[in-house]
Amino acid sequence: MTKQIILQAFDMTAANHNAHGLWKHPENRRHREYKSLDYWIELARLLEKGKFDAIFFADVLGVYDVYGGDEKAALRDGVQVPLNDPAFVIPAMAAVTKHLSFAVTVSTSYEQPFHNARKFSTLDHLTNGRVAWNIVTSYLPNAAQNFGMDKMVKHDERYRIADEFLEVSYKLLEDSWEEDAVISDPETGVLVDPEKVHRIKHKGTYFSVEGPHVSEPSPQRTPVLYQAGTSEKGRDFAARHAECVFVGGPTPEKINYYIEDIKARAEAYGRSRDEIKAFTFLHVVVAETEEKALAKYDEVKHYWSADAAKAQYGGSTGYDLASYENEEELFTYKHTEQGQSRAAYLTKDAAKPFTVKEIQEKFSQPAEMDIIIGSPEQVADKIEDFFVRSGVDGFNLTHYITPKDLHDFVELVVPILQERGLYKKDYADGTFREKLYGHPHLAAAHPAKQGKRLGQN
Amino acid sequence: MTKQIILQAFDMTAANHNAHGLWKHPENRRHREYKSLDYWIELARLLEKGKFDAIFFADVLGVYDVYGGDEKAALRDGVQVPLNDPAFVIPAMAAVTKHLSFAVTVSTSYEQPFHNARKFSTLDHLTNGRVAWNIVTSYLPNAAQNFGMDKMVKHDERYRIADEFLEVSYKLLEDSWEEDAVISDPETGVLVDPEKVHRIKHKGTYFSVEGPHVSEPSPQRTPVLYQAGTSEKGRDFAARHAECVFVGGPTPEKINYYIEDIKARAEAYGRSRDEIKAFTFLHVVVAETEEKALAKYDEVKHYWSADAAKAQYGGSTGYDLASYENEEELFTYKHTEQGQSRAAYLTKDAAKPFTVKEIQEKFSQPAEMDIIIGSPEQVADKIEDFFVRSGVDGFNLTHYITPKDLHDFVELVVPILQERGLYKKDYADGTFREKLYGHPHLAAAHPAKQGKRLGQN
Repeated sequence: MTKQIILQAFDMTAANHNAHGLWKHPENRRHREYKSLDYWIELARLLEKGKFDAIFFADVLGVYDVYGGDEKAALRDGVQVPLNDPAFVIPAMAAVTKHLSFAVTVSTSYEQPFHNARKFSTLDHLTNGRVAWNIVTSYLPNAAQNFGMDKMVKHDERYRIADEFLEVSYKLLEDSWEEDAVISDPETGVLVDPEKVHRIKHKGTYFSVEGPHVSEPSPQRTPVLYQAGTSEKGRDFAARHAECVFVGGPTPEKINYYIEDIKARAEAYGRSRDEIKAFTFLHVVVAETEEKALAKYDEVKHYWSADAAKAQYGGSTGYDLASYENEEELFTYKHTEQGQSRAAYLTKDAAKPFTVKEIQEKFSQPAEMDIIIGSPEQVADKIEDFFVRSGVDGFNLTHYITPKDLHDFVELVVPILQERGLYKKDYADGTFREKLYGHPHLAAAHPAKQGKRLGQN
Repeated sequence: MTKQIILQAFDMTAANHNAHGLWKHPENRRHREYKSLDYWIELARLLEKGKFDAIFFADVLGVYDVYGGDEKAALRDGVQVPLNDPAFVIPAMAAVTKHLSFAVTVSTSYEQPFHNARKFSTLDHLTNGRVAWNIVTSYLPNAAQNFGMDKMVKHDERYRIADEFLEVSYKLLEDSWEEDAVISDPETGVLVDPEKVHRIKHKGTYFSVEGPHVSEPSPQRTPVLYQAGTSEKGRDFAARHAECVFVGGPTPEKINYYIEDIKARAEAYGRSRDEIKAFTFLHVVVAETEEKALAKYDEVKHYWSADAAKAQYGGSTGYDLASYENEEELFTYKHTEQGQSRAAYLTKDAAKPFTVKEIQEKFSQPAEMDIIIGSPEQVADKIEDFFVRSGVDGFNLTHYITPKDLHDFVELVVPILQERGLYKKDYADGTFREKLYGHPHLAAAHPAKQGKRLGQN
């Protein structure tokens, strides 16, 4: 069977996500309706109609306050603010769907593993195993300030914290409750067999968690694990823990290079390369004809806000573009305490510096990477070409006019991809992990499965 | 108009809450279905049909491990374990209701104020202003161990932490965003007016939070505030912050005494006594006839588990009843680091000690306080009598066979209370706070409103 595209809607429970300035478009609804359950319920139904595998919720825990030295530009254009907690729309969306899954971002830098484990166990129970956790270590300096720190923990240490956070999570989610701990036998009067529930007694460098976990084993136990780091530490972390990774790059071939790199690293850790699915972004402007699509793209450019794009870039890289001269050169990776790598998306060659002027020009238009623009057939052609050449398993589909663009994609592009056999006509049964990998729990070679079972010596 | 009863269902997203052993009853469904959205959606519809004002979710962050020195008794009988995070059923229940409100417990001892403020802003947006926060400082020693502490913070310090937690919360929820900060004007291109969003710059003893808040003002801004402390510190805290308080006591008159005490304390803080509503528990066993109700109560007693009750008592008071002799006397308030006061429910006179044997006997039957048992008319009579004599504003209705008992109450008792004018026939419009007090935001005299507005000098 032809390999089929895994499709996710890339979203955020905010007035605006990455479609900077597009809230001004007369047909955009999200900035007004993101606060209402009805909006998300309607979206869930649309995505399930379009056989989307999942909706992926990004998240941040502060404001973008680097560009120009404060958060004014970010507020003015609504750069990921105002923003709600993404996890709470999931139960309402799950209630009206059967197959759509939900990936939600949680930072290991500002959350407690015990809270987080209970949150994901709960969501996994309520959705019948349709949740995924996008593991991030957070990049906004303002987020650190919101959680009692004067400045951010350094990049490498953030990954050490994340590693221990995962270790605690595995102990709670995988090891604390044996599969048959819940008996519910009215004859013997035993609801839970106390011999099958174990304290985890974790005492580490960053966390101390006694346990036991309080939630019983959920369909997937550990949610499907996503990770998006592109730094050296980030890719190493992904190779050990992640089941789905995000890979960015200037060309399909470069993306393929990164995918192979992560899969090779995973193999070096004893995992199967097939237990990692790779995703990249997909930017589409589609309409009934090429002419209409180009006209739609003109509208997108018309409403685009370069200032908002720079505000987001500032918060996510630490570079304040307002404080550099045009001809100054910036390196792809900013080697600071923050150690961000977002600038990698901007250049074909990660080792080559670029000028501030080049970046400014990049942000004057609506995407850092190529946008696929055209008629439904043209768009399907380009998606197919990109899919084959890059070797990705799936896409995170962005949108400019929300939710209209998702609607158009479902109506115009999905049927063609289905016709070509590149996209499913029906969902597979089971949990999200079963749909992706055919088994409900983490693979046997995953590090979460390597620990000695608690209480079983 | 006659004062009307405010009615809440007392619940927990756990296999069992306080109906110890009743999961064994053949008609009990909760222990099997609490993990499913369908269960909570059905319950939401039932409660709105019965014109319940709210569902109140208790919560704990650990296991009951004092009785017998470990958590075995608690696990065996499912004493508030297995347990999910209560907040996540709210959006799905809100989506199928219009008026039912949702009170959810969050501990100020183990949560971060920034996370918590965003959580409640989100829930308040998604429910159109139908959320309340039950503020607790937590009593389980195991919870402390799950959040990196070897033992619990002492009782009085927990309240100092709670005070500062509330201060930060008010700054984020009330002061950070001015009411008209969100402009959404495509003409000027301004989504949020940056001059009307303020950093809170909180630097205190326990928390340091820079802000600004990331969520825009929700219908109620601050959720309706509940508090249940009965200790000296707890009542003082309630008098300052709470809009709804829980009061326990052996007789209606004793409950009335506590209510008057808290209202007097609130007045001393410059608040109106009318801005505090008092609740107590309501235990009911009702059936079509008195005979059937007594038979139903026999079933409740048959399935009751004294061991489970002792396990819960152990965790919430610190007293391990397995380690005392029958004739030993325990004082109502245990003056330990934990400083719990649950034992107050057990005696008519708070200053009088009671023997371990007396407590053991108390736990051999299904309630610490009187259960109202009888035909619908008999139950309505007793509720009316209790309501008038105690001066409470409302009840937290418990249930033994779940959700059957709530069903029976809605079918059998609600119509009679409505007929007598003691209970509403229709909901009032608006947010939860508007339904309770006629205004959407905290009252002007509430301490949250006394702070100098940020950025406005």
